[in-house]
Amino acid sequence: MKKLLLKIRYIGTNYCGYQVQPNALSIQRRLNEACLSLFGFECDIVGCSRTDSGVHANEFCATVAKRGSESLETSLIPDRIPLALSAHLPRDISVFDAEWVPSEFHARYDVLEKEYIYRIYNAPVRDPFEEDRSAHIPKRISDEGLEQMRLAAQSLVGTFDFSSYMAQGSSVASTVRTVTSATVERVGDVIVFRVAANGFLYNMVRILAGTLTEVGLGKLSAEDIPRITAAHDRSQAGMTMPACGLYLNRVTYRS
Amino acid sequence: MKKLLLKIRYIGTNYCGYQVQPNALSIQRRLNEACLSLFGFECDIVGCSRTDSGVHANEFCATVAKRGSESLETSLIPDRIPLALSAHLPRDISVFDAEWVPSEFHARYDVLEKEYIYRIYNAPVRDPFEEDRSAHIPKRISDEGLEQMRLAAQSLVGTFDFSSYMAQGSSVASTVRTVTSATVERVGDVIVFRVAANGFLYNMVRILAGTLTEVGLGKLSAEDIPRITAAHDRSQAGMTMPACGLYLNRVTYRS
Repeated sequence: MKKLLLKIRYIGTNYCGYQVQPNALSIQRRLNEACLSLFGFECDIVGCSRTDSGVHANEFCATVAKRGSESLETSLIPDRIPLALSAHLPRDISVFDAEWVPSEFHARYDVLEKEYIYRIYNAPVRDPFEEDRSAHIPKRISDEGLEQMRLAAQSLVGTFDFSSYMAQGSSVASTVRTVTSATVERVGDVIVFRVAANGFLYNMVRILAGTLTEVGLGKLSAEDIPRITAAHDRSQAGMTMPACGLYLNRVTYRS
Repeated sequence: MKKLLLKIRYIGTNYCGYQVQPNALSIQRRLNEACLSLFGFECDIVGCSRTDSGVHANEFCATVAKRGSESLETSLIPDRIPLALSAHLPRDISVFDAEWVPSEFHARYDVLEKEYIYRIYNAPVRDPFEEDRSAHIPKRISDEGLEQMRLAAQSLVGTFDFSSYMAQGSSVASTVRTVTSATVERVGDVIVFRVAANGFLYNMVRILAGTLTEVGLGKLSAEDIPRITAAHDRSQAGMTMPACGLYLNRVTYRS
């Protein structure tokens, strides 16, 4: 009794998000279609998270089992499955790894840590190669501003109630999360914010990225972050950055 | 009497190339439309080269003058022009720099050196983010293969008759060119071939990239390159790589 764990990469621009929704095109629906074509039967596909519309993934994880069962039977060896499944997927989605996991494995509940990247294109004029792949902040973030962003990111590391950085209207049992790392670096004209945690609240990375951007632009300072976090008040934090700059980058499971 | 020198970036995928062609969409036509909208009169736009359909540019240079003249009059200061022109261009083209040059300046004839990049995505399964932005070579090029590619690239540096690396059917006065640098590096799963020269023959970079790829895959060795070059015979060189991996990266002018 085993199921398949897939690692998937996708450009989220043309999708309503990962999760199947009525009357909208989702990544999950495309995976369902590809699995039906390859294996010859309907499958249950369970993803590691529900990414929003327009959000990308460098590494999204999902399990595949025959519909209604907790198991998958196939004569294909896992090494062949990425290429075979990708052949049934559109150009903006690919499967780059596949391995067997026990039937008990759960793609969402067994996540130990996830890492997101937020990309900010920081140059006066838009770059065609960055369209839909980053948020464009035309005003230059200075080296000093970048250093403030770094300090601000560092102060997010730890176990906190992150409700200041949660979209209003969402409801979860607990708003406490543990951020294990948060870094900011400039790579050419792109500023990369990288954050790993045991879980994220709704829109949390996009609000964190917006708050750090305001730090970078001098509207907030790194020293404001602990106060904003402690306020447990969404209105204290910065803007919600657009989906197009956000990438699910890595998923770590309990082994 | 002065004209404007623009630096342009574009994704070539949806265009027939830089040059205006009847019944086809070119970069030049889009620039003409944008200049008409911004300046209010028709312009003559002269580009630094004629990139092929599907070829990209990180830095393409072109001059703008009022149609039929060698001069441009505008109240806009050059610093404002990139943003203003980009607002009249589609998402896959942008202008990121503008400066005044003398009327005598010629965007093509005054080129001292051009640098191209060829990007090869070298991993078993296609990457959605690399679609149309690199050539996909699924078979792994080993570190030893990469070292052979480096040696092969080095042996292209110098003044040679490069007709072995020119598409058949093209006619030019001379097939001698001077390659000033040629390097190969692996960046993650992408192999980047970078070559600078005082000029390039038709399809030369794509044929060089194909020849180096065959070196990387062990079909040719670095030691074969001088013989292939000396043969002056297109059939001795490797395949022509697809346009989607090619980027005009830098243009240097006589000052």
